Amino acid sequence: MSTQQLIDSARSVMSTVKDLNAASALLGWDQETYMPEGSAEARAEQIATIDTLAHQHITSNVSRTLADDIRTSVSDGGTTSDRLLRLFAREVERASKLPESLVRETSRATALAQESWKKARIASDFSIFAGDLKKLVELKTQAAHLYGYTDNVYDALLDLYEPGITVAQLKPVFNNLQKGTTDLLEYIKPVRERANDAILYKKYDSNKQLQYAQYVARAIGFNFTTGRVDVSTHPFCTSFAPTDVRLTTRIFEDDLRSCLFGLIHEAGHGMYEQGFAPELTRTFGADGASMGIHESQSLFWENVIARSEEFWQWGLPLLKDYFPEQLSGVSAFEFYKAINTIEPSLIRIEADEVTYNIHIIIRFEIEEQLINGSLNVEDIPAVWNAKMKEYLGITPPNDAKGCLQDIHWSFGGFGYFPSYTLGKLYAAMLRKQLLSDIPGISDEIRRGHFKPILAWLREKIHYHGKTMTPNELIVSITGRQLTEADFLDYARQKAERVYEMS
Amino acid sequence: MSTQQLIDSARSVMSTVKDLNAASALLGWDQETYMPEGSAEARAEQIATIDTLAHQHITSNVSRTLADDIRTSVSDGGTTSDRLLRLFAREVERASKLPESLVRETSRATALAQESWKKARIASDFSIFAGDLKKLVELKTQAAHLYGYTDNVYDALLDLYEPGITVAQLKPVFNNLQKGTTDLLEYIKPVRERANDAILYKKYDSNKQLQYAQYVARAIGFNFTTGRVDVSTHPFCTSFAPTDVRLTTRIFEDDLRSCLFGLIHEAGHGMYEQGFAPELTRTFGADGASMGIHESQSLFWENVIARSEEFWQWGLPLLKDYFPEQLSGVSAFEFYKAINTIEPSLIRIEADEVTYNIHIIIRFEIEEQLINGSLNVEDIPAVWNAKMKEYLGITPPNDAKGCLQDIHWSFGGFGYFPSYTLGKLYAAMLRKQLLSDIPGISDEIRRGHFKPILAWLREKIHYHGKTMTPNELIVSITGRQLTEADFLDYARQKAERVYEMS
Repeated sequence: MSTQQLIDSARSVMSTVKDLNAASALLGWDQETYMPEGSAEARAEQIATIDTLAHQHITSNVSRTLADDIRTSVSDGGTTSDRLLRLFAREVERASKLPESLVRETSRATALAQESWKKARIASDFSIFAGDLKKLVELKTQAAHLYGYTDNVYDALLDLYEPGITVAQLKPVFNNLQKGTTDLLEYIKPVRERANDAILYKKYDSNKQLQYAQYVARAIGFNFTTGRVDVSTHPFCTSFAPTDVRLTTRIFEDDLRSCLFGLIHEAGHGMYEQGFAPELTRTFGADGASMGIHESQSLFWENVIARSEEFWQWGLPLLKDYFPEQLSGVSAFEFYKAINTIEPSLIRIEADEVTYNIHIIIRFEIEEQLINGSLNVEDIPAVWNAKMKEYLGITPPNDAKGCLQDIHWSFGGFGYFPSYTLGKLYAAMLRKQLLSDIPGISDEIRRGHFKPILAWLREKIHYHGKTMTPNELIVSITGRQLTEADFLDYARQKAERVYEMS
Repeated sequence: MSTQQLIDSARSVMSTVKDLNAASALLGWDQETYMPEGSAEARAEQIATIDTLAHQHITSNVSRTLADDIRTSVSDGGTTSDRLLRLFAREVERASKLPESLVRETSRATALAQESWKKARIASDFSIFAGDLKKLVELKTQAAHLYGYTDNVYDALLDLYEPGITVAQLKPVFNNLQKGTTDLLEYIKPVRERANDAILYKKYDSNKQLQYAQYVARAIGFNFTTGRVDVSTHPFCTSFAPTDVRLTTRIFEDDLRSCLFGLIHEAGHGMYEQGFAPELTRTFGADGASMGIHESQSLFWENVIARSEEFWQWGLPLLKDYFPEQLSGVSAFEFYKAINTIEPSLIRIEADEVTYNIHIIIRFEIEEQLINGSLNVEDIPAVWNAKMKEYLGITPPNDAKGCLQDIHWSFGGFGYFPSYTLGKLYAAMLRKQLLSDIPGISDEIRRGHFKPILAWLREKIHYHGKTMTPNELIVSITGRQLTEADFLDYARQKAERVYEMS
C-alpha cells in the first residue's frame, strides 16, 4: 500500500472507533448530568456494548494487518501523517495484546469494585473493598505482563497514561519533590499565621458563582460555541469532538473555591481538546499527548494563571460586583494570599498546590508495590497512614478520609495518579518557558488579555494532539527533560510572596 | 438449535443492536437539547457511524442464518418468546433487503434534503426543495420495491410504520372519515360563535407553565425516576431503555396549550415506553407495536383524557393556583370549551382534534400518488392547495404555510403521516372499550385517579411491546377491526357539548 492508502485505511478505522468513543463518552457524561437515577444498570450495559465494539474494531484483522504494514513501511520521525500512522499502529498493537476475555473480566470486576468501594467508603471499612481490589490488582498485573515492559512491571501501566515514562525516571524526581516539599513546609512553618483563607468560606450564592466562573472560562479562551458547562457531583471534562467539549463543575455556597477553580481547571482541559489540528479530527491523534500533559493544561490555567496575583488584579473587581458584601475591602493581594495558603490536609482533591504532590507520591509508592507484589492489599491502610504521618505529619482518623477517598483504584486505574503531579511539573516547566518566550506576559494577564497565552499553548502543545509523546513535547518546548526543579522554584517564590517572607 | 438456543442467540444480537440504537437516540436527544451549536457536523457523522454499525449487526451472516433457522422452526402463535423470535426474523429479513449502498445513498440524500427543505421553508419557495425531494421519492420507491408488496407499492412503506396495513384498507376508512368530518364541520357552522379560546392566549409565565405540566405528567403516571423532561424546539419523546425515557416540550408565554398538551402528549408516548414487559428489555420487542399504536397512547392522554370536561374538574383548581389572575372566574366547562374549539386552519400541528385528520388525509393522498408515480413532485404545491380548498375551504397563502410546513418528507418518511390519524382512530376505539370495561372511569378522572386507566393500558397494550401487530392488539382488545366510526361518534358528542347543541 502507498502511504496515502495506509492513511485512508487507518483513518477509516479510526473514525469508526472515535465515533464509538464519542457515543460512549456521551453516555458517560449524560449519566453524570441528566440521566434518570433509575437507569444505571441499562446505562452500564450500553457503555459496555459500545466499548466492546470499539475494542473489536481496533483489534480486527483489518486493523492488525494495517498496523503490520505501517510498522514495516513507515519510519521514525517524518510528517504528521507518519506520526499518526505510527500512533495508530501502537494503539492497535497494545489493544491486541489483551484477550477479549481479560477485557471482559476486568470490566465486570471493575463494576463490582466500584460498588464495594462506594459501600466501603460510606462505612469507612476497607475490608469491604479489599477482596474486589485484590482481584483488580491481579487482573491489572496480568494485563501489565501482557503489555510487556523492560524494567519494572508497573511501567507497563504507567505507559497507558504517560507513554514512555518509567519508574526509574519517576523515582528520583518524586524523591526530590518530596524532600523539597518537606523543606518548604519547614521553611514557612514559623510564618503560617501570616495568611489565612477565611474570606473564601462566607456565603456565596450558587447562581452568581456559576455565572462568574463561566465568565472567567470564556475570558481565558474556552469556546462556548463548541463547548458547554453543566453541574455534576464531581467536576470533569469530556469531549465528543473538538467541536463538542463539555465541562462540569460543582458549587458549594460556603466555599468560593470549588466552582471557580474547578471550572477553570476543566476549561484548561477543554481548551486543549478544542485546539487539536483540524487534520487530526476523528483520528487517534485528536487526544491529549498523555494524562500528564492534559493535566499540565488544566493546572496551568488553574494554578499558574488563575492563582497568580496579577490575575486577581484583573479578576477581583468583577468578582466584587457579584459579591460586594462578602469581599468588601479585600485587595487583590489579600485574595491572592487566601487562595494560596499552604497547609497539610487529609483529602487530595482539597489539598493546596504544594502538599498535593505528597498525596500523589504516597499513592504512587503504594501502587508500584502492589503491582510488583511487594505489598498486600490488606496492608494498604496501615502503609497509607504511616506515609501520611511521615510525609505530612498527619494521620487519617479513618479509611474514608485515608486510603478509601479516591475512586481510581476501583476502576483499575493503577498508573493514573502520577499524571497529576507530572501535570504540575510540566506546568511549571511551561511557565518558565512562557515567561522567557513572552516577557511581558504578566502585564497581559493584569489587563485580562489571555489570548497570547492560549495562542502559545495552542502552537506548542494543543495543535499536536497525541502525535508527539509527552517527552518529545516537553523537550521540544523547553529544551530540557522532566524536572521537579521548576516546580519547587515556583512554589518557593509563591510561598515567599504569600507569607511575605522577602 | 433448540428454541432456548435460538432465543439466547437472537437476544445476543438484539441487545447489541438495541444498545447501539440507544446510543444513537442519546446522540439525537442531546443534539436537540444540550449540544453546542458548533458540533452539528461531527454529530451527524457520529450518528451515521452508530446507525451503520447497527445495520451491519442486524444484517450480519450470524443474524441471517439465525433468522432462517427461526423461520423454519418457530410456528405462528405461541408464546411471547416465539413472537419475539418471529419479530427478530422479520426485522433481519427487512433490513437485509436493502443493500448498504442504498442505505448510505438515502442517508446522504436525506441530509441534503433536510438542508434544502429548511431553506425552502424560510424562503417559502418549493422549487428549492423540489430536486432533493424528487431524489428521495426515487430512492424510497426503489426501497419499497425491494421490500416487496402485494397490491400497491406504497404498502411497502406504510408497513414500516404500521405493520400489516394497506392502502386498500386505509382508503375507505379515510374516505368515511373525511366525509364525516365535513358533515361535522357543517353541523357546527351555525353555532361556532358559542365557543372561543381567547383565555388561552393571555400571558402565562414559562416556569409556571412547565411546573404545572410536569405536575400533570406525574399525576397521570409518567415515572420521573426512569424519565425526565427537557425543553427543545419541537416536543418529542425518546427512549434509551424502559428505565430511561426522555420527554421534551416547548413553551410559549402567549399560548397556554403548547407546553401543557405537548407534555401530556409526550408523556403518553413515554408511559408506553416505560411499560414494556421486563422480559422484552434489550430486545426488538421493547418498542411500540407501530407508530399508530404509539400515537394512540399519546393522543389518548392528550385528547381523550386531558381534553375531557372531567379532567378539568380535577385539574383547573391547581392551574388557577398557578395563574389566579389569568383564569379568574373561569369554570371547568368554560376551560373545556376553550381547549376544544373546532376551526379549519393551515398548520397541521396547530389543528384541532377534528380538522387535524384532514391534514393527514391530504398528505396520505399525495404520498400515495408520488410513490406510485401518478403525481410529479413539481405538482405538489398546486395539488396541496386544491385539496386544502376542497376539504377545509381554505387556501394556504404560500408554500411555507402549505406543502413545506412539515419536516417528514425531507427525511424520507413517506408512509409515516397516516400513523397520526390511525392513532386518533385507535384512541377512540380504546376509549369506547375502556368506558365499557371500567364504567366508573369518569368519576375516577374527576378525582384525579388515573391509575386504573394506566393499568388498563399497561395490561392491554404497553406490556406486549412490539410482539403483537397493531391489528392483533386492536382486535384482541376491542373485538373489532380498525374503524373511523368510534372517532366520529366521539367527535360529534364532544362538539355537541362544546357548542351546547344538545
